[in-house]
Amino acid sequence: MPSRGTSAQGLSGRNPPGRRTPGTSRISRISSPADLRALDRESLNELASEIRAFLVQQTSRRGGHLGPNLGVVELTLALHRVFDSPGDPIIFDTGHQSYVHKIVTGRAGDFDRLRTRNGLSGYPSRAESVHDWVENSHATTSLSYADGLAKAFALRGEHNRTVVAVIGDGALTGGMAWEALNNIAAAKDRPLVVVLNDNGRSYAPTTGGMAQRMAALRLKPGYERLLGQVKSRLPMAPVIGRPLYSALHAVKSAVKDWFIPQSLFQDLGLKYLGPIDGHDTAALEEALHSAKGYRGPVLVHCLTRKGEGYSPAENDDAEQMHSPPAFDPDTGLPIAAPTKTWTSVFGRKLATIGAERDDVVAITAAMSGPTGLGPFAEAFPDRMYDVGIAEQHALTSAAGLAMGGMHPVVALYATFLNRAFDQLLMDCALHKLGVTVVLDRAGVTGEDGPSHHGMWDMSLAALVPGLALAAPRDAATLVQELDEAVAVDNAPTVLRYPKGAVPQDIQQLRRVVAHDGRLVPAAGGIGAVDVLAEPGAGHDHDVLLVAVGAFGALSVEAASRLADQGIGVTVVDPRWALPVPAALRLLAIEHKMVVTIEDGGRSGGVGASVADTLADLDVPVTVLALPQEFLEPASRGDLLQDLGLTAKDVARGITERIAERATADARNRSAAAPVDTAPVNRAPLNGTPTKDKRTAGEG
Amino acid sequence: MPSRGTSAQGLSGRNPPGRRTPGTSRISRISSPADLRALDRESLNELASEIRAFLVQQTSRRGGHLGPNLGVVELTLALHRVFDSPGDPIIFDTGHQSYVHKIVTGRAGDFDRLRTRNGLSGYPSRAESVHDWVENSHATTSLSYADGLAKAFALRGEHNRTVVAVIGDGALTGGMAWEALNNIAAAKDRPLVVVLNDNGRSYAPTTGGMAQRMAALRLKPGYERLLGQVKSRLPMAPVIGRPLYSALHAVKSAVKDWFIPQSLFQDLGLKYLGPIDGHDTAALEEALHSAKGYRGPVLVHCLTRKGEGYSPAENDDAEQMHSPPAFDPDTGLPIAAPTKTWTSVFGRKLATIGAERDDVVAITAAMSGPTGLGPFAEAFPDRMYDVGIAEQHALTSAAGLAMGGMHPVVALYATFLNRAFDQLLMDCALHKLGVTVVLDRAGVTGEDGPSHHGMWDMSLAALVPGLALAAPRDAATLVQELDEAVAVDNAPTVLRYPKGAVPQDIQQLRRVVAHDGRLVPAAGGIGAVDVLAEPGAGHDHDVLLVAVGAFGALSVEAASRLADQGIGVTVVDPRWALPVPAALRLLAIEHKMVVTIEDGGRSGGVGASVADTLADLDVPVTVLALPQEFLEPASRGDLLQDLGLTAKDVARGITERIAERATADARNRSAAAPVDTAPVNRAPLNGTPTKDKRTAGEG
Repeated sequence: MPSRGTSAQGLSGRNPPGRRTPGTSRISRISSPADLRALDRESLNELASEIRAFLVQQTSRRGGHLGPNLGVVELTLALHRVFDSPGDPIIFDTGHQSYVHKIVTGRAGDFDRLRTRNGLSGYPSRAESVHDWVENSHATTSLSYADGLAKAFALRGEHNRTVVAVIGDGALTGGMAWEALNNIAAAKDRPLVVVLNDNGRSYAPTTGGMAQRMAALRLKPGYERLLGQVKSRLPMAPVIGRPLYSALHAVKSAVKDWFIPQSLFQDLGLKYLGPIDGHDTAALEEALHSAKGYRGPVLVHCLTRKGEGYSPAENDDAEQMHSPPAFDPDTGLPIAAPTKTWTSVFGRKLATIGAERDDVVAITAAMSGPTGLGPFAEAFPDRMYDVGIAEQHALTSAAGLAMGGMHPVVALYATFLNRAFDQLLMDCALHKLGVTVVLDRAGVTGEDGPSHHGMWDMSLAALVPGLALAAPRDAATLVQELDEAVAVDNAPTVLRYPKGAVPQDIQQLRRVVAHDGRLVPAAGGIGAVDVLAEPGAGHDHDVLLVAVGAFGALSVEAASRLADQGIGVTVVDPRWALPVPAALRLLAIEHKMVVTIEDGGRSGGVGASVADTLADLDVPVTVLALPQEFLEPASRGDLLQDLGLTAKDVARGITERIAERATADARNRSAAAPVDTAPVNRAPLNGTPTKDKRTAGEG
Repeated sequence: MPSRGTSAQGLSGRNPPGRRTPGTSRISRISSPADLRALDRESLNELASEIRAFLVQQTSRRGGHLGPNLGVVELTLALHRVFDSPGDPIIFDTGHQSYVHKIVTGRAGDFDRLRTRNGLSGYPSRAESVHDWVENSHATTSLSYADGLAKAFALRGEHNRTVVAVIGDGALTGGMAWEALNNIAAAKDRPLVVVLNDNGRSYAPTTGGMAQRMAALRLKPGYERLLGQVKSRLPMAPVIGRPLYSALHAVKSAVKDWFIPQSLFQDLGLKYLGPIDGHDTAALEEALHSAKGYRGPVLVHCLTRKGEGYSPAENDDAEQMHSPPAFDPDTGLPIAAPTKTWTSVFGRKLATIGAERDDVVAITAAMSGPTGLGPFAEAFPDRMYDVGIAEQHALTSAAGLAMGGMHPVVALYATFLNRAFDQLLMDCALHKLGVTVVLDRAGVTGEDGPSHHGMWDMSLAALVPGLALAAPRDAATLVQELDEAVAVDNAPTVLRYPKGAVPQDIQQLRRVVAHDGRLVPAAGGIGAVDVLAEPGAGHDHDVLLVAVGAFGALSVEAASRLADQGIGVTVVDPRWALPVPAALRLLAIEHKMVVTIEDGGRSGGVGASVADTLADLDVPVTVLALPQEFLEPASRGDLLQDLGLTAKDVARGITERIAERATADARNRSAAAPVDTAPVNRAPLNGTPTKDKRTAGEG
């Protein structure tokens, strides 16, 4: 349990640390939600201050979701005082605002290992606590989970349980929210409390018609006064049941025109309570008690401020220190100098393209900054669309834009393409529309865990007829391939690259394309491949190593190690890896073995597509990729090492595979003998986990 | 151009054929929307009657979407009189209500080849007409397309164009509608008309909070009178622009409490017009003119009756003859006797399971009848959830139900699983929840075209860690495998089967499972595989033919043909095809060649997974599957024949492959010679299209 004080000077506002040097003495006395319920109001507010200081101090060390958690300190305390977790499940949408929940459920002592390997997850984790129900961090699922849980409790006769879903106004822009609210509202007798944590912005200022209405509410001159009036009508002591709700409801109906969101939710048939000052624990507890007493579906509308109580976060217009890297707690300024990232290279190049072509538009699903669209948005605000956390709409509105003569570039995190597969397939590809999808955070991403790794996108892309996918190996190829992508006007294209710093450029030795069954020099375009390394003089063409994307440098290094052992390796970057370039086939038949390496799941990915394309040739193909498993949180470097995706491991694996083939060939040249047993689980090439989920049933 | 009269006696209601024998003389004079605009009101209503009779007569012959199209006759006529298609795009959500649109855009003469190969598509088709913009028939995309088109027109300065999206109240339950409305409402200056075709039911009575509110509206005693009042305030001549809108708006605001949907859409910031009698062309045209004149986003709420004017459809409580097979036009009764289908076998078995286990619940996304959930719903209404056209919510609420101790069975059409991939992956599988997904209409479905073929699901399932997938080969295995699926409580399972009649059962010769590296007899369970045929005495074990699902019978027949040529084939049904059973590996090493056959896309499917699992063995694997392309509408039989997926073609292909291997082996045994050219596009095994989209770049 850390007991260090913090010197953070930025702490301010509601429940600030005050004159005392903040410590963790109150935090250390909270080991479960029951301990919270024993506190009087003053102690609770002091605890809130202490938690705020603790959050700043802890996240300053190696980063984390600071802003969202500063915004929900009082709300989380109130939730755990009113509801009886885990019997009453409290489900945090997206999950990055669960730090306070972790602190009050006995995990404060683990924060010094936040977001580290085997340390505290940055999201809810069922392995950590019975208080954590949902660990998927994709937005807008909480309401659907809650609907299912409430249905289960009703069927099982567990009528005393209440399900609580905490969802931000940003996540409410996702379509699943509509689907879920429509179902939740239909059942009047299932106790389900939706806590709308309305901070007026999710990752970035929330857009859309609903957001405009909710923003208008905050700006109305009488709003604060009205809020006070509503609160004054609430009895100070918690009162359970319909009478209080009805009284409150009567107040609210009288001012219906002021409270637009109320009528919106009421039109869906959902009871509404609010708005509540989300930093006033007493008001929150009163409202939550009322909601709990209602024994049906009810929405509690809480107004919070992201970054509350820490001035560098409060004053950060764009992001409220949503998820900063390590920073100075006094100033909120990052400790490390910014590096040149894949994101920034993309962002600058797109702005350049935007200046050259006025038909190019950009679309983001509430992630303009993190996906690098800032420069484009600043230069061409009329051609920039933030559609909310709504990947489905992002892709299909892109299809509409393309039908209307524009070329949309949709920038997403790779893992969130999962949400729009059908739209990419049916709305873009079936209609042969030129839509460019740019996927950041592709492959192994690191500490954010299984739902953030971008390991599904290449397999999905391989299913889409007509689609072309490129994984740039460096900044230069990213720039070239983005140019090539926006030149395609009759099919969707996908560019994908990992998180973080972009490596040094790797100049190709030559660029070739298949033409009339031969390899000829090429300037670029889909189908052209880059040869990055070739066997030295006197070496055989033993191995064709197909290096997808950022594994170019690793592959060149592996080739160099193998050359030292007398093994001749040609390293090729397929550039547009899907569809598999015909040039790869011509190169493959010049070699004794093909090895592919990619930063994506092995099932149906680039390697699998290469293997399928070459299946009729007499050249064995070995696929190196991420195992088709949920990968745990750890640094990208650690995970790649575990998975054997390092130059050293790849070189060793290839050496071993060559030896195996030599043995097999020798065996084949002798008379074929019947084999009656064999290892059921294929031995991994090198270091990949021995569990292969594609093989099962071994009794 | 058909000019036959019809003797249909069921025609009734609004714009009925009247005393005249209905003909197609008026229809024959309409070759484009411009011809409609010349008609006076009486002629227009007569045309509506004629169209209604024409629809009944045409769809009675070989089936089609009758009910939805009877409901939109007047609406479609009004749309084409007020808007100037294709300059003003009219986008039909889902697309099955576009028959009237086809008639008035010059395609009436093609209806005798409706839903036939190379005939008229049952959905909009860009190849057919410039009036068709969107041909994806998955629900709820129209608003997003429209938003994109409106953005494009605004950017290009084409301010005189209006985008129209026609969407049913059922499709409005899909999450994309919320995402799109939120974006549409945010732009006050983009002309976009949302026509809500509110028939109070989509495929089945629409469920959810919104639906309850809309249903309540229809039942209010003053509704008809109020509708009359509203209409009486509309000037009879079309008036363009804001003044009329404002006047109308004032009327509507005064009765806000009556018109719940109005306030719902207004809360989103969307202008609202309605409700309008959707079978009154004059009222419709007035409202649409007003909407067009508004030059911003506006919703026109039209009340229609599915099946309007044809009593067998009006009286069909459950489905309004949504999409009947061929029927007697006088009675509406189907011509063919019902057969035992995959759907009905599933439906009966699930009801049996429901009686045995009170923790089993069923979930449908507005397709209770078509997916066979009727018997379960009737027996256990409390355990049956229709969530609306909301596949995302279906899967994630299933996850919540599983967390709460229930075992949900989610019944979908296979192609619609695309919409819920992320939820299956992250919400069900990552959380290790026992959720059974049952996919009907898997594989080649037939006339409904590219967006209905269920050819993506196995590739998606192969990406999901821990998931098990079975494709039953007949009724008996469907029953067994459903029992096995609902017994799994720590991972999602998928069962998938095709559309239509279930074939005769095929009794296995033996059932085996891998145990300690050997094959041993098994009773069942995941990992056990069925041997359906074996080489006769004296035959070698030449080929292991892995028959996925309904291709069992085909494979047994192919084996029989091959036996006649002296080729020994073992046919095996893997039962649970994913993860690849370890028993398959043991069987593979007893054979010289493995061939897989499946009714799904080849990229990343079962065959690809088998090939990957066996990649280190010295046994070549040939994958027979659907090409990774959008398949055109045609009967299932015709398409399978085209693709070479018949017993005869499979047998011939295997013979050829064996000959190729023999040649290659002979070549390999001689000295290795350098090869400098090779065919770039791999020759298909048999009859599959030569274009292989996985290989590209041939200059």
